[in-house]
Amino acid sequence: MSSPGAPAMGLPVAVDAMGGDRAPSEIVAGARQAQDTLGVPVVLVGAREKIGDTLGLDVIEASEVIAMDDDPGPSVRRKKDSSLVRAAEAVRDGKASAMVSAGNTGATMASALLRMGRIKGISRPAIATPIPRVGGHPSLLLDAGANAECTAQMLVQFAQMGAAFASERYHVDSPTVALLSIGEEPTKGSALVKETHALLAELPGINFVGNVEGRDLLPATADVVVTDGFTGNVALKTLEGALKFFMNLLLEVFSVDEDTKRAAEVLMPHLGPLADDLNPDGTGGAVLLGVAGVCVISHGSSNAKAIVNAVRVAHEAVAGDLVGRLSASVS
Amino acid sequence: MSSPGAPAMGLPVAVDAMGGDRAPSEIVAGARQAQDTLGVPVVLVGAREKIGDTLGLDVIEASEVIAMDDDPGPSVRRKKDSSLVRAAEAVRDGKASAMVSAGNTGATMASALLRMGRIKGISRPAIATPIPRVGGHPSLLLDAGANAECTAQMLVQFAQMGAAFASERYHVDSPTVALLSIGEEPTKGSALVKETHALLAELPGINFVGNVEGRDLLPATADVVVTDGFTGNVALKTLEGALKFFMNLLLEVFSVDEDTKRAAEVLMPHLGPLADDLNPDGTGGAVLLGVAGVCVISHGSSNAKAIVNAVRVAHEAVAGDLVGRLSASVS
Repeated sequence: MSSPGAPAMGLPVAVDAMGGDRAPSEIVAGARQAQDTLGVPVVLVGAREKIGDTLGLDVIEASEVIAMDDDPGPSVRRKKDSSLVRAAEAVRDGKASAMVSAGNTGATMASALLRMGRIKGISRPAIATPIPRVGGHPSLLLDAGANAECTAQMLVQFAQMGAAFASERYHVDSPTVALLSIGEEPTKGSALVKETHALLAELPGINFVGNVEGRDLLPATADVVVTDGFTGNVALKTLEGALKFFMNLLLEVFSVDEDTKRAAEVLMPHLGPLADDLNPDGTGGAVLLGVAGVCVISHGSSNAKAIVNAVRVAHEAVAGDLVGRLSASVS
Repeated sequence: MSSPGAPAMGLPVAVDAMGGDRAPSEIVAGARQAQDTLGVPVVLVGAREKIGDTLGLDVIEASEVIAMDDDPGPSVRRKKDSSLVRAAEAVRDGKASAMVSAGNTGATMASALLRMGRIKGISRPAIATPIPRVGGHPSLLLDAGANAECTAQMLVQFAQMGAAFASERYHVDSPTVALLSIGEEPTKGSALVKETHALLAELPGINFVGNVEGRDLLPATADVVVTDGFTGNVALKTLEGALKFFMNLLLEVFSVDEDTKRAAEVLMPHLGPLADDLNPDGTGGAVLLGVAGVCVISHGSSNAKAIVNAVRVAHEAVAGDLVGRLSASVS
């Protein structure tokens, strides 16, 4: 177990070789690239014969695979020799410093929670997802889907964990924390939001800037945006869908005829960097905050680059003693 | 009162001249244009001396104005001679066929609800907001913000009202109705969503297609998407924010230098129609479903074109006996 004050820096990051739409080849390629370019030791988790070429990386054997569409709870309970469960156990048992998976998000959470346990004092883990900002560090949205039902007390802890994580990951002093609602006034929103607003307004150690609305997610006006896992997941997927929709429209227009193709060539050098800024492959994935170990959840369509960034985030979280900071943030 | 079976077709549409960021001039211009181009009689509501030039339109006098940031409940109770309250009374009293406002959304809802009352059998009105689709009729998202707290029974009525409205407004036979959640499986989501899913799956007269996720809002996969007013408002504003963000990025890139400006000129003939399709000014605004009269809520930044479309939607809703259809949908 990765415990406060004793970051397991020399240990490898455990990468679930079987999780993700492009597993295992892109995952293994990314893991190898991470080890080579970042100098971070990496160990794959999976069955050697299913992985194929391990590119010379060490392997923690795990004979079973939890599929992207498996029901998280039952699959984690039944598939005790799955790559996800074994990756979480490797962190718990001090064989890995952190885990990374692009697989089934629900099963990743369940594996981490059941095998690593929670940080003392934290009632429920939350998924913190980076929302890209052009020309700046991302904003963090949490909970992005771990808890469909939340209490105000849970949201208060999400605010504390989110602020601690923003400080660690983006080196922000006193990150701004906002509450997602349907109006800026403290009187707007659901009963849950109103109760949470009152608690956050009185909470010491947090730079609470009040409510924000959906339109404040992109471009993000706060460093950390707190919401329940249902609303957060809907908002995040709405954002992803809208960006994809817009990109596709633009690509269609670019390919109308020879003139538009030439126009696109003129614009691409300017659009490319913006697209890179907004590409989730570059942000390193979401992090499950509140479990007693570092667990990075990369998106399902992760390519090698996304895995490199996820390993980097995992490694930095271990080096920055994320678990210790989260523990301190709620105590 | 506009009652089922007796659409008040000869009556004018009451347009709140004082509501909206560009009131009164753009609102009055739009109202006049609507009367001229659609042949729909229009009456302004407001104080003659505040409106200025009424462009020859009739006026229902109302000395007070509810500002965009006034607290809806108290302002509607106190400002009994406000343009919003008088517009709703005009519908109730058979002096107007419908009301249109680009003003304070909460106060518009409160005015309509308090003065017109609810349709018998409907527990709570909901805001149905059109989400544009490229090359097709919009999808309807409801509730877009009238009710921050909902029960499953309320969501079931929203589904029924949404389907009835989609049939009336877009002439869709058996519109598809989806429930917004965080996974397609009936077991995914909050307790509210699971309970609603079970009720909708058994409900006769509705073409229920199951859960959709945030990424299914744009492009919309269902004709009607049902959710609680908190989630709906967050999702809608997230979508609006993302589109605005992307448009602004694109405009910045277009204006980098002479080459990019020329490239933009090549692309604009193709981008223009898409932007028109996505422009909320073209969709005619949201409609408050469930009150005993037609109430169209145009967005705060409405220009004359948006008001023309809002009047058109209001007029068609009266002609199509929307109130009668909504009443029948829940009985």
